[in-house]
Amino acid sequence: MRISQKVKKILAAYESDNPGTKANLARILMEGKLGGTGRMVILPVDQGFEHGPARSFGPNPAAYDPHYHYQLAVDAGLNAYAAPLGALEAGADAFAGAIPTILKMNSANSLHPEKDNPTQAVTASVDDALRLGCAAIGYTIYPGSGQFYDMLESLRDLIAEAKSVGLPTVVWSYPRGGFVSKDGETAIDVDAYAAHMACLAGAHVVKVKLPTDHLEQPEAKKVYQSEKVAIGTMAERVAHIVQSCFNGRRLVVFSGGGKKGDEGIMDDARAIRDGGGNGSIIGRNSFQRSREDALKLLGAIVEVYKDKA
Amino acid sequence: MRISQKVKKILAAYESDNPGTKANLARILMEGKLGGTGRMVILPVDQGFEHGPARSFGPNPAAYDPHYHYQLAVDAGLNAYAAPLGALEAGADAFAGAIPTILKMNSANSLHPEKDNPTQAVTASVDDALRLGCAAIGYTIYPGSGQFYDMLESLRDLIAEAKSVGLPTVVWSYPRGGFVSKDGETAIDVDAYAAHMACLAGAHVVKVKLPTDHLEQPEAKKVYQSEKVAIGTMAERVAHIVQSCFNGRRLVVFSGGGKKGDEGIMDDARAIRDGGGNGSIIGRNSFQRSREDALKLLGAIVEVYKDKA
Amino acid sequence: MRISQKVKKILAAYESDNPGTKANLARILMEGKLGGTGRMVILPVDQGFEHGPARSFGPNPAAYDPHYHYQLAVDAGLNAYAAPLGALEAGADAFAGAIPTILKMNSANSLHPEKDNPTQAVTASVDDALRLGCAAIGYTIYPGSGQFYDMLESLRDLIAEAKSVGLPTVVWSYPRGGFVSKDGETAIDVDAYAAHMACLAGAHVVKVKLPTDHLEQPEAKKVYQSEKVAIGTMAERVAHIVQSCFNGRRLVVFSGGGKKGDEGIMDDARAIRDGGGNGSIIGRNSFQRSREDALKLLGAIVEVYKDKA
Amino acid sequence: MRISQKVKKILAAYESDNPGTKANLARILMEGKLGGTGRMVILPVDQGFEHGPARSFGPNPAAYDPHYHYQLAVDAGLNAYAAPLGALEAGADAFAGAIPTILKMNSANSLHPEKDNPTQAVTASVDDALRLGCAAIGYTIYPGSGQFYDMLESLRDLIAEAKSVGLPTVVWSYPRGGFVSKDGETAIDVDAYAAHMACLAGAHVVKVKLPTDHLEQPEAKKVYQSEKVAIGTMAERVAHIVQSCFNGRRLVVFSGGGKKGDEGIMDDARAIRDGGGNGSIIGRNSFQRSREDALKLLGAIVEVYKDKA
Amino acid sequence: MRISQKVKKILAAYESDNPGTKANLARILMEGKLGGTGRMVILPVDQGFEHGPARSFGPNPAAYDPHYHYQLAVDAGLNAYAAPLGALEAGADAFAGAIPTILKMNSANSLHPEKDNPTQAVTASVDDALRLGCAAIGYTIYPGSGQFYDMLESLRDLIAEAKSVGLPTVVWSYPRGGFVSKDGETAIDVDAYAAHMACLAGAHVVKVKLPTDHLEQPEAKKVYQSEKVAIGTMAERVAHIVQSCFNGRRLVVFSGGGKKGDEGIMDDARAIRDGGGNGSIIGRNSFQRSREDALKLLGAIVEVYKDKA
Repeated sequence: MRISQKVKKILAAYESDNPGTKANLARILMEGKLGGTGRMVILPVDQGFEHGPARSFGPNPAAYDPHYHYQLAVDAGLNAYAAPLGALEAGADAFAGAIPTILKMNSANSLHPEKDNPTQAVTASVDDALRLGCAAIGYTIYPGSGQFYDMLESLRDLIAEAKSVGLPTVVWSYPRGGFVSKDGETAIDVDAYAAHMACLAGAHVVKVKLPTDHLEQPEAKKVYQSEKVAIGTMAERVAHIVQSCFNGRRLVVFSGGGKKGDEGIMDDARAIRDGGGNGSIIGRNSFQRSREDALKLLGAIVEVYKDKA
Repeated sequence: MRISQKVKKILAAYESDNPGTKANLARILMEGKLGGTGRMVILPVDQGFEHGPARSFGPNPAAYDPHYHYQLAVDAGLNAYAAPLGALEAGADAFAGAIPTILKMNSANSLHPEKDNPTQAVTASVDDALRLGCAAIGYTIYPGSGQFYDMLESLRDLIAEAKSVGLPTVVWSYPRGGFVSKDGETAIDVDAYAAHMACLAGAHVVKVKLPTDHLEQPEAKKVYQSEKVAIGTMAERVAHIVQSCFNGRRLVVFSGGGKKGDEGIMDDARAIRDGGGNGSIIGRNSFQRSREDALKLLGAIVEVYKDKA
Repeated sequence: MRISQKVKKILAAYESDNPGTKANLARILMEGKLGGTGRMVILPVDQGFEHGPARSFGPNPAAYDPHYHYQLAVDAGLNAYAAPLGALEAGADAFAGAIPTILKMNSANSLHPEKDNPTQAVTASVDDALRLGCAAIGYTIYPGSGQFYDMLESLRDLIAEAKSVGLPTVVWSYPRGGFVSKDGETAIDVDAYAAHMACLAGAHVVKVKLPTDHLEQPEAKKVYQSEKVAIGTMAERVAHIVQSCFNGRRLVVFSGGGKKGDEGIMDDARAIRDGGGNGSIIGRNSFQRSREDALKLLGAIVEVYKDKA
Repeated sequence: MRISQKVKKILAAYESDNPGTKANLARILMEGKLGGTGRMVILPVDQGFEHGPARSFGPNPAAYDPHYHYQLAVDAGLNAYAAPLGALEAGADAFAGAIPTILKMNSANSLHPEKDNPTQAVTASVDDALRLGCAAIGYTIYPGSGQFYDMLESLRDLIAEAKSVGLPTVVWSYPRGGFVSKDGETAIDVDAYAAHMACLAGAHVVKVKLPTDHLEQPEAKKVYQSEKVAIGTMAERVAHIVQSCFNGRRLVVFSGGGKKGDEGIMDDARAIRDGGGNGSIIGRNSFQRSREDALKLLGAIVEVYKDKA
Repeated sequence: MRISQKVKKILAAYESDNPGTKANLARILMEGKLGGTGRMVILPVDQGFEHGPARSFGPNPAAYDPHYHYQLAVDAGLNAYAAPLGALEAGADAFAGAIPTILKMNSANSLHPEKDNPTQAVTASVDDALRLGCAAIGYTIYPGSGQFYDMLESLRDLIAEAKSVGLPTVVWSYPRGGFVSKDGETAIDVDAYAAHMACLAGAHVVKVKLPTDHLEQPEAKKVYQSEKVAIGTMAERVAHIVQSCFNGRRLVVFSGGGKKGDEGIMDDARAIRDGGGNGSIIGRNSFQRSREDALKLLGAIVEVYKDKA
C-alpha cells in the first residue's frame, strides 16, 4: 500500500512511536472511501453495553447480530469498526482483514448509574486486541469524575502496553461526574481540556463530543474572554479543540451524541471538516436505522469530508 | 467421538476460540442423553455454599456426600455437573472422566447478606480446573450491584486465562443489588441486558433466570413498547434472550429459581425449548428430592428437549 | 512407617491431593499416642497473639519459653503443635523432627477489637512453613464478618500454594462479626455452615467450636425442624458437623473454648468421639496449668479417644 | 565534556548513586549558559495538565505547539525542559539531544479539585523516560495531604527504579491538603520540612516554592524562636532550605508561583542565588509572554546566577 | 573477628536463621565499646522525618549534615546507627564499613497527624539496604492502630525478604492509635504485648519504650494482679518485657522517649541493665546537644552497661 503524502505527514507527528504503531494508524487512515485523506469515519457499537440490547438494536433488529456491524462498516467504506470484546470475537474470523477494528477496552452500563464518581469496567486486554487482529485499542476516560485519576492511570498502562506491541490508542475523553455540571460536559473549555489531557497521556487519536459555547470554569472563562478566543461557531470550536490537541499534532474525531436529524448530522460533519477535525464517529445514527438508510447517510457524510480532502 | 452437525454449527459461532476451548464445549454438548442435540441439562450444586448444608441437603441427607451428585448427574444422563472446588475435589478421582465438570469459581453465602453491593468470593482458580480435569469454569456476576464492575473485571481475567488453556466459561448473570428492584431482578429488559453483557464480556455459555414480563428501566420500556418487542409468553421472552445473546451465536441456559412443582418445571423446559434456549440448569429441584424422583424428573425434562431436537 | 488401615481410608477421601500433601496428613495422623487411630489431639498456642503474653502465660510462667510448648506436645504424645511464626522459629531447630508442627498463618489480637468486620493479619507464608519443616499450615476464617470474603480468598490462595508443595491446610472456621449474633457464633446451624464452607474452600482439616443447640438463621431453623435433624445432644451435634464435612470425607476437630473444669473437658472429648469427630484442639486448658497437671489431663483425653479407636 | 570542579563537587555528595545517575545529573548541570556553575534554570510546562490548554497557552498561542517549548529552552540556554509524557513525545525526535528533558511523571488537574486529600495521577513510567532519552524524571508530592503516604511510597518506587537505570529524580515537594493551612503551604517551617522529606526519600533535586516567614506548626515555631533561626529575608529563608537539604548535599531549585512582574522575578532569583540555592524553575512567567520577552527575561535571570557563579 | 561466648549464646537462640542473618546480628553485637557484651547502644536519627529539620537539628545545627551522625556514632563507640534512606545514602560511601547501619524502612511525619489509624510510609526497600551495605533493616509498627494489621503484614513481607538475603530486622513496636489511651501507650501490659507480637512476627531485635506501671486492658489487669506479676520498679518491668520476648530468646532494646535530664537517662540505662534488657536507643538526647556533651553522655551510658556486662 502506498501511503499518501497527507497521511505520511500525520504519521510524522507521532515522533516517539515505533513503526508497528504507525503502521496500524496508517491501516486506519488508508482504509475505505476516505483512505489517504487524513479524514476518518468510524463505526462504534458499544451501545449494547451502555444501554442494553433492546434500546440499542430494537429499532433495527438485524443489528442484534454482530456480523451486521462488521458488514455495515465494510459496505459503507468506513475507516474502522470499534466494539467491545465479545462483539468483535463474534465476527473476528468471518471478517478477518476486511476492516480495521478497534477493541473498546472499557464500558459502562445503565444498570450502574453513578453521578459523582462514574467509571467503567475494563473488559478486555491488549493481548485480546492482538489475537483478534485489531488495529487499535479504545478506552474511555471521564475527566471530572472522582475516579478520573484511576482511569487515567489505567489508560497509561494500556497505552504503554499497546504501543509496545504496535497498537495505537483511541481515547474517548468524556467529561462527566461530580466535578462538572451537566452543561459543563460539553462546554468548550472543558471539552478542550479533556482533549488536551488525553494527548498529554499519550493518546494517538482523541474522540470528544462536539462542544457548545458554554464556558464552565470561571478561571478559564476569564482567559477565553480576555484573549478573545474564537468559539462562536461550531467550526471555530472544532478548530480550538484541534489546537488543544498539540496544535494539530494529534488526530481528533468527534461524536454528535444522541440520535438526531440527518441535516444536523451533516452540519456537524461540515463543521468538523471546516474546523480541521479529522472526522466523525457515528454509532446510533447509523445502526439504529435500516441498512439502506444507514449506507445512504454514511455515504453522504463521507462525501462531506472528501469535499475538501 | 463424531461431533454432530448441530454441535458443529454451534461451535462455528465461537470464531475467536482455540481448538482446546471448542473441544471442551463439544465435550459438554456431546455428553449424555441430549448429546449432539445442541440442548443441555446441567446439574449445579452450589447451594451448600449459598444456603448452608442443612437447608441444601437436609431434605435428602444422602446428598451430604459429594459422590451423590456426581452419580446423579451420570445416571440421569446430563451434560455436566457444576460445583465449587471442595465438592469437585471430593469426587474428582472416583468420577474421573465420568461426566464433564464445571468448576464454580465464586460463591456467596447467606451469612454474608448485602443488599446494595452484593458480590461473591472467588474460591478457586483456573489451575484448579485444569488439575481436576474440568471441562469449563463457571462464574457469577451481579449486574445492578455496586460491585458489578469489579466482578466483571475479575470475570474477564478468568475468561482470558481459562480460554488460553482451552477452557470455556459459563457465566451466571444474575441482576441483583442496589441498582435494581426486587421485581427488576427477573424483568425481561434487565435479564436480556444481563445476558447481553455476559456475551460482550466473552462468555461461552450464559445462564440467566427465566424472565417475567416486567419492564424495569423506563428508557428500555419505551423501546419495548414502541418497537412492539414480543414478550407476552415465556417462549417469546426466551427468544428475546436468545436474540440478545448475539442473535443465537452464544449458548444460553436457564434456571427456574426455587423449588417448584413438577408441572411448573416441565412448562419452563418447554418454553425454553420453544424459544430456542439451549437448556436448563436444575439444582434444588433435583437433589432435594429422592434419587428416584430426581431421576424421573430429569428424565422427563430431557425428553422435552429431545422432542424437538 | 506403616500407615494404619484407618488412616489409609481417611487419606483415600482426599482424592485430588498429591502424595506429598497426603504424606504430611499421614505424619500428623500417625504421630503420638493416637497415631493410626484416625483421632487427633493437637496443642495450639496462639493466645500470646490473641490475648497478650501475661494473660496467656502469667498463670504458668514456664510457658513464656517457646520450647516449653514443643516439649509439652512431645511428652503428652500429641499429634501436632500449632503456633505462629516467631514461636515456631524459636524452637524449630531444637525440636526438628520431634513433632509435626502446624504454622498458624494469621492472627488477631485484643488490641484490635472490631465487632462487625473482624479479620486477622497474615504473619507467615507457605515458604516459612517449608523452611521450618512444618507438616501443615493453619488459617482462621470468620464467617459472618464483613471481611469474610477477603479472608476466604486469601485462604484459597494459601491452600493452593500449600498443596502445590505438599502441605495440607487446617482451617479454624469461627463464625464472628456483624452478621451473626453472639449466640449465633456457636449455633449448630451456623457452626455446621462454617465447617461446610471450609470444606468447600478446600480445607484438609476443619476446626470448629463445639456447637450449642441454638438455631440462628430463620430459614435454616425451618429445615432443622421440618426435617427433624437430631441436634439434642452434643454427640448428635458433632455428628451433624461431621456430616456437613462432606459426610465424613474431611477431618474435623473441635475446640472447647475458654478454660473450664476437667470434667467438662472430658465430657466434650467423649461427645466428639461418640459423634464421630476426629479429635480435640486444646490450648489454654493445657498450657495454663502446671506441666504435671497438663500431662495428666492430656493423657486422660487421649485415653477417651483410644477407648473407641 | 569536561565536568567543572563545581559540578564534580556537587556530584560527589551523591555518594550512593551509580555512575549513570551521576552522568545524567551532570548532563543537566553542564548544559546551557549556566553549564558548570552549579546553578540551573529549568523550563517546566505542565500547566496544560494543571489548568487546561486555554489558561496555559491562550495568552501566547504559539505555545500550543509542543515544539515551541523545546525550542524556547534551547534558545534561552537553559539547563533542562520538564513536561508530561505526551508533550515530550511530541518533540522527542525533532529535539533529540538538543536539551536534557525531565519527564514529569504525575499531574493533577483543575477538573479534579480536592481540598483535604489531593493527589496526582501517574501518567508515565521510567521506561517512558528511557525510550524518550530523558535525563531525569520528575514527581510531585503533597506533604500535608491525606494521600501523602501513598504519594511518598509511589515516589520511592519510582526513584529506586529510575536510579537503577541511571536516571536521577527531581521532586516537586508542595505542601497542600487538609493538614496545612493556605498560609502554611509556603510557611518556612513547612517548606523546609517538605524539602527535607524529599531528601530523606532519596530525591536528587528538590523543587520547592519560595517560602514566606510564616511559621505554621506551633512546635516548630518554638524552636525557630528559641534557636533564633534566621528567616527574616528571602535569602536567609533560602539558606535555611538549603541547610534542610542535607546541609547542601542535595540540589534545590525554587519556583515563584503565579505570574508576577519582572522585577519580582529578578529579586527572587537574587535571593535564591544569595541564599545558596541552585536555581529557578520558571514556567508561566516564561511561556505566557511572547518568545522575545521570554528570552529577554530568561537571559536576565541567567545573568543573575552567573553573577556569583 | 572472634565472636564472644555471650554473643554466641544470643545467636544460638535464633534457631531458624541462616548464617548471613546471624553474621549481621553479630556485626552489631560485636561493634564498639560494648562489643561482645550482649548489650548495645544504638543511635537512631529519624526525627527529621518525624518532626521536621528545625525541630530536630535547630538546637545543634551541625546535625543538619548527615555525616555528623555517622561520625558521632563511630566516635562514641556505639553498636549501630539507624536512619532513613536519604540520610544513609548521604554518607554511605564516606563511612563504608565504619559502623553497622540500620536502614529505617518506614517513617511518619508531623504534617500527617492521625489519631485513630496512624501508620507510616515505607520509604526504602531491602534492596536499598543491600546496596548501602546495611547490617539490618528497621521497621515501626503501631499496635492499637486501625492500620495495625496492614503494618504487620508489610513487616512480615520485609522480614522474610530481608532474612532471605541475610539481614536481621529491628522492630520499633510502639502502641498508638484509636484502640489505646494515651497512658496505655506505655502501660506495662500493652508494652509487653507489643514486644511479644513483634517477636511472634519474626523480629530479631525489638525496640519498645520504657513502660510505666499503668495497666490498660481490664482482662490483663486481672491476671497481673491475680498472678502477682512484679511490675513495681522499672527494672522489674524491663524484666517482664524481656520475659515477654520469648523468655529472653530475642534481643530487646529500649528508648526513653523525649529529651530529659542526664540523671534520668542514666537511671533508665541502669534499670534496663538490671532488668536484663539488651540496651538503649538514644536519639534526641544525643544529637540535640553539642558533640562534646553527646560523647560524654553516651560514654557514661556505655559504662553503665559495661558495669555488669
